[in-house]
Amino acid sequence: MSTQPFIPRLCVIGVGLIGGSLARSLREQGKVGEVIGSGRNEENLRTAVHLGVVDRYDIDPTNAVVGADVVVIAVPLGAIGEVLRAIVPHLAAHAVVTDVGSAKGSVVADIERVYGHIPPHFVPGHPIAGTERSGVEASFATLFQNRRVILTPLAETDAAAHRLIRTMWEFTGAEVVDMGVRHHDVVLAATSHLPHMLAYTLVDTLARLDDRAEIFRYAAGGFRDFTRIASSDPRMWHDICVANREQLLEMIALFSADLEQLAGAIRNGDQSVILTLFERAKRARDNLYLD
Amino acid sequence: MSTQPFIPRLCVIGVGLIGGSLARSLREQGKVGEVIGSGRNEENLRTAVHLGVVDRYDIDPTNAVVGADVVVIAVPLGAIGEVLRAIVPHLAAHAVVTDVGSAKGSVVADIERVYGHIPPHFVPGHPIAGTERSGVEASFATLFQNRRVILTPLAETDAAAHRLIRTMWEFTGAEVVDMGVRHHDVVLAATSHLPHMLAYTLVDTLARLDDRAEIFRYAAGGFRDFTRIASSDPRMWHDICVANREQLLEMIALFSADLEQLAGAIRNGDQSVILTLFERAKRARDNLYLD
Repeated sequence: MSTQPFIPRLCVIGVGLIGGSLARSLREQGKVGEVIGSGRNEENLRTAVHLGVVDRYDIDPTNAVVGADVVVIAVPLGAIGEVLRAIVPHLAAHAVVTDVGSAKGSVVADIERVYGHIPPHFVPGHPIAGTERSGVEASFATLFQNRRVILTPLAETDAAAHRLIRTMWEFTGAEVVDMGVRHHDVVLAATSHLPHMLAYTLVDTLARLDDRAEIFRYAAGGFRDFTRIASSDPRMWHDICVANREQLLEMIALFSADLEQLAGAIRNGDQSVILTLFERAKRARDNLYLD
Repeated sequence: MSTQPFIPRLCVIGVGLIGGSLARSLREQGKVGEVIGSGRNEENLRTAVHLGVVDRYDIDPTNAVVGADVVVIAVPLGAIGEVLRAIVPHLAAHAVVTDVGSAKGSVVADIERVYGHIPPHFVPGHPIAGTERSGVEASFATLFQNRRVILTPLAETDAAAHRLIRTMWEFTGAEVVDMGVRHHDVVLAATSHLPHMLAYTLVDTLARLDDRAEIFRYAAGGFRDFTRIASSDPRMWHDICVANREQLLEMIALFSADLEQLAGAIRNGDQSVILTLFERAKRARDNLYLD
């Protein structure tokens, strides 16, 4: 008598850093039977098969989802609506669908647009993990270990579907937490989307200076760490900006006002304003991490 | 017959991360005879003796410099003028003086103010190395290995003094380069001072939000690296802001205008502007480092 794995058939649409790492982890834990990949980049999908991340692929997501128990949509945010529209008529009746998008308001809007309502079997999710690298070759099974995965189930979400996706992520070693959609988007705008905008803009500002070659040659120690996230995938980050536009613009405005205030204090040599800001920031950072 | 070490008597005023690491490195290489420490924090100086970083200390820099062949001023930029004023009358005739300040225009102005002219034996310098930690306990002998040290000698600087300071830094494993004072300050404003302002401001902006506890709890992977430099010494960074005010304000203005432009593109959903910026930044960052 053979026992069924936790997810007999998993379909991952978008086998990149996140989708690939999830598949690798569940496979290593023996929690999946067959893994089917799909996505737009066939070369990447061939690599995924070659690396053993997926068993097979189908470039057409409408075929890839057939008979899948769980479908993970791990494509850039801007492509989620289109993928959903394609796959919904082909999903198995019992299929549970989740996504890994870095903004959740836009995903919920996509879901409503495609279904005309909030379906019980879609559990919006977001693993707070990643590196600046992308593609299946960058994926690894331990990416989610001791990281957080945020799920933003809605009132309409089926409790069993929610439990299934929660358990799936727990198998990867992640801590799973539930959060409201809007709250998620505010928190991520602050801690991830804004910092990425600052890193991209900083590198771009310097790269456009006349003596950029000189300037980059003398980039000091902290610069490497500070700008690492500017190596992230441009397409993915474009989509995040658009998807979480309102929250992100609000954070940029807050930050810009604070930077302007600091610049004013520097201009006026206002020692107490400068010192207070630096000390408060250092205290907050030091309390946050023990580097 | 005994051979003299390269620097028979070294005086380090300000035995912190930089001053302490320099002393440790030269000592390990056998390039110094006696090392005398000075500074305002007696407990730190006692620790420096205890750790073997200096042989002895004198809290009064006018005593500490007596008979020293090389004097390294490694105090925050705002204290360099005061230290110079105190020690100049007590320097040995052959003494060579250098500093490690992160801005050089203000140091040259301090020198001129104290001496009434540019003395041949002062070689302004700046090791492009450091961590976000401070104090002698954070110092280590290999801090400068494969890092750059910028010297900004002036027309009046004695060639032998310049050579001596260059050789001293080369003994630590650093690559020593010469640069004009203003050029140094522009390059450092871009690659170090501006990023520090962004990191301090970002952490402070988030730390003042209502749900800061929540926000910091979900700080994603990149956030830790991105904000590490916000743990740097507030006093030191206050002094750098003031010392390099003009160049720094110019860089903040450039950056702010670029961020405002990005915000505008996000507001208008201008895909090509956003993508172009991210792609240009990623290319520049990827060409800079192979992480």
